[in-house]
Amino acid sequence: MTTVSWVDVNDDSGFGLENLPYGVFSRPGKVPRVGVAIGAYVLDLAGLAADRLIEDHGWFAADTLNAFMAAGRDAWQANRARLTELLTDRSNRPQVHPHLIPRADVELLRPFRVADYVDFYSSEHHATNVGRIFRPQGDPLLPNWKHLPVGYHGRAGTVYPSGTPIVRPCGQRKAPADAAPSFGPSLKLDIEAEVGFVAGVPSAPGQAVPVSAFRDHVFGFVLVNDWSARDVQAWEGQPLGPFLSKSFATSVSPWVVPVAALEAARIAPPAQDPAPLPYLRTDEPWGLDLSLEVLINGQVAARPPFSAMYWTSPQQLAHATVNGAPLRTGDLFASGTVSGPERDQRGCLLELTWNGEEPLELPDGTKRVFLEDGDTVTIRGTAPGANGARINLGEVTGTVRPATC
Amino acid sequence: MTTVSWVDVNDDSGFGLENLPYGVFSRPGKVPRVGVAIGAYVLDLAGLAADRLIEDHGWFAADTLNAFMAAGRDAWQANRARLTELLTDRSNRPQVHPHLIPRADVELLRPFRVADYVDFYSSEHHATNVGRIFRPQGDPLLPNWKHLPVGYHGRAGTVYPSGTPIVRPCGQRKAPADAAPSFGPSLKLDIEAEVGFVAGVPSAPGQAVPVSAFRDHVFGFVLVNDWSARDVQAWEGQPLGPFLSKSFATSVSPWVVPVAALEAARIAPPAQDPAPLPYLRTDEPWGLDLSLEVLINGQVAARPPFSAMYWTSPQQLAHATVNGAPLRTGDLFASGTVSGPERDQRGCLLELTWNGEEPLELPDGTKRVFLEDGDTVTIRGTAPGANGARINLGEVTGTVRPATC
Repeated sequence: MTTVSWVDVNDDSGFGLENLPYGVFSRPGKVPRVGVAIGAYVLDLAGLAADRLIEDHGWFAADTLNAFMAAGRDAWQANRARLTELLTDRSNRPQVHPHLIPRADVELLRPFRVADYVDFYSSEHHATNVGRIFRPQGDPLLPNWKHLPVGYHGRAGTVYPSGTPIVRPCGQRKAPADAAPSFGPSLKLDIEAEVGFVAGVPSAPGQAVPVSAFRDHVFGFVLVNDWSARDVQAWEGQPLGPFLSKSFATSVSPWVVPVAALEAARIAPPAQDPAPLPYLRTDEPWGLDLSLEVLINGQVAARPPFSAMYWTSPQQLAHATVNGAPLRTGDLFASGTVSGPERDQRGCLLELTWNGEEPLELPDGTKRVFLEDGDTVTIRGTAPGANGARINLGEVTGTVRPATC
Repeated sequence: MTTVSWVDVNDDSGFGLENLPYGVFSRPGKVPRVGVAIGAYVLDLAGLAADRLIEDHGWFAADTLNAFMAAGRDAWQANRARLTELLTDRSNRPQVHPHLIPRADVELLRPFRVADYVDFYSSEHHATNVGRIFRPQGDPLLPNWKHLPVGYHGRAGTVYPSGTPIVRPCGQRKAPADAAPSFGPSLKLDIEAEVGFVAGVPSAPGQAVPVSAFRDHVFGFVLVNDWSARDVQAWEGQPLGPFLSKSFATSVSPWVVPVAALEAARIAPPAQDPAPLPYLRTDEPWGLDLSLEVLINGQVAARPPFSAMYWTSPQQLAHATVNGAPLRTGDLFASGTVSGPERDQRGCLLELTWNGEEPLELPDGTKRVFLEDGDTVTIRGTAPGANGARINLGEVTGTVRPATC
């Protein structure tokens, strides 16, 4: 049954009743609160709760979503159903309308406090391209890649809200031809267009979270830009993986799209051959047909398809916990760079320019190898929603500032 | 000037006035509090504060040290001086004595809430041995190793207090001769004897913390056992480093030894050749003459010397922040396995048994390749203190429980 909101929602906005993503907003002189996007508005949940229009247990008069994320799937479902009811039945308008605030009047903050941050490497196209660039002699995929979702821990303390300026990091880098490493601003500052999911409900130490329990623990999805310094990464990364090349900044989008809103986006993921070990198997389709766009200074640089990801989000979660590591509320898991099979579907400049060898020409004719100071990068995304609607994942953006070293 | 406490301190305990390490303790039916070890007692700082014997700003009636760690070096110095005064001048005994609790009567908890956790790889002997084991054909040290302190982020959510049972993790592993990976309990469960330091005072985003500012940010040192599943690590670790092979558990000792207590332990570190880049240089001697012991079931398995570490703690901190990543209160930085040049100075079984090829015989005649279920591992340490005293770093311990998969 199609439902229509009494709120004036532009059909193209992607912020209709099928979406209802959660975020944290502030207004001048007021403390942050939890809100939900509807049309061009943010619906103030703390205000609704104060008027006893929705259930609340300290969830919404808060500067993070963490308390609500920890409340669990029943609470998430009940609140979503109640908000849908409030926004659909016009008789609620007099009570609800005072809590609608034009989004242009609010600042969107980092939506949740990050506990641990894990970054995967789950696009076969991305991993293959990176393998070809850095190991041209060998197999592009390492032997483990199709058996497990390769991942590593990133720095939780540098997960920033969308809009945070990104200062070009300084560090050590050494090109193969250099006699010794040098120190200075990264010369290969890059983006990584990713999709992340955030855990709400903790798990117990020693208890793996099976693929089938994904929806019991995961609250929703965000867009992620995992800024990367490729020259630093190439020099520092062996044998223990990325460290300072990633830890300076990771940006996340302000709207957390509930898992429930993405049910209509679920599709069969690419076939997995060889078949994964039993703890990674599922018959449920957990591919997600999310369409991303990467823009540099407003010019579309790439359109990475999340549908092409080899490892699914529930497989990533099952893998990350199979050793007994517990989940905490706020654990963020990013997909790794999203890249498709086509050249214009690659989610980072490393691939788009083949490590700087093939400059990328943007629609307006400007060219890039890696990011320049002043560049603004925006990743945005949409997905199929219920009732044939389109869901807007919002956007994550950041502008590069000059290095300070 | 030598000072003597009116508290009965056994000269061999290592918990004299020169040490005064901080921890968090609880007693049955009471909420956790901050305390300091003196002799066989814990001095209840919340109790002292309630009696207005020491300055307090919500620091000590707390279940973590984080608030006091964030208070900064002046507060740390003032409190240390005041505690020394209270414990030295016998006239204070009537007021202070009621706040001394036998340590046998308390439970020691995890001393601080971990923000981010970074693990380094800073022992040349360890890195060389690991290189020889896993890359017998090539140079044992990779080209970057003597130019920067190699490190990576670990999982903050699985940093556990000493005494937490360690459930043998399950995971994927594949020996080179195996046709495909298999899933099951790790067959190569190992220890890593390490020393960690914890940040108290945050730093600003974009501001590197120079070597010279180490004492302005770092509160103190703990012992660390970074439990490792070597078979999982060998299979998963390329190209992005350790993930599930480490993320199941890291144990830390309960007593945080203040940086000020280790001034007498400072020595010149091994010569660094080639000279590091300027941001890693210092003339101050920041080697630390800490003596560690690794015991398996009470039998000494190794005596790793921290004095042999190639990269110093201030160099690690300067490196970790040189890209602008800010410090948060509770950031834990572990040294990586501490190994010396001698065989019985190696801080992990991977090295002690040469990846299982040479079983280690303990003093009582039992042999080990890797850890067996039921094994209890204890790492303890001491250091030179002021006035010729010996400082006890306490111990970190854990017993291996069978896997549950």
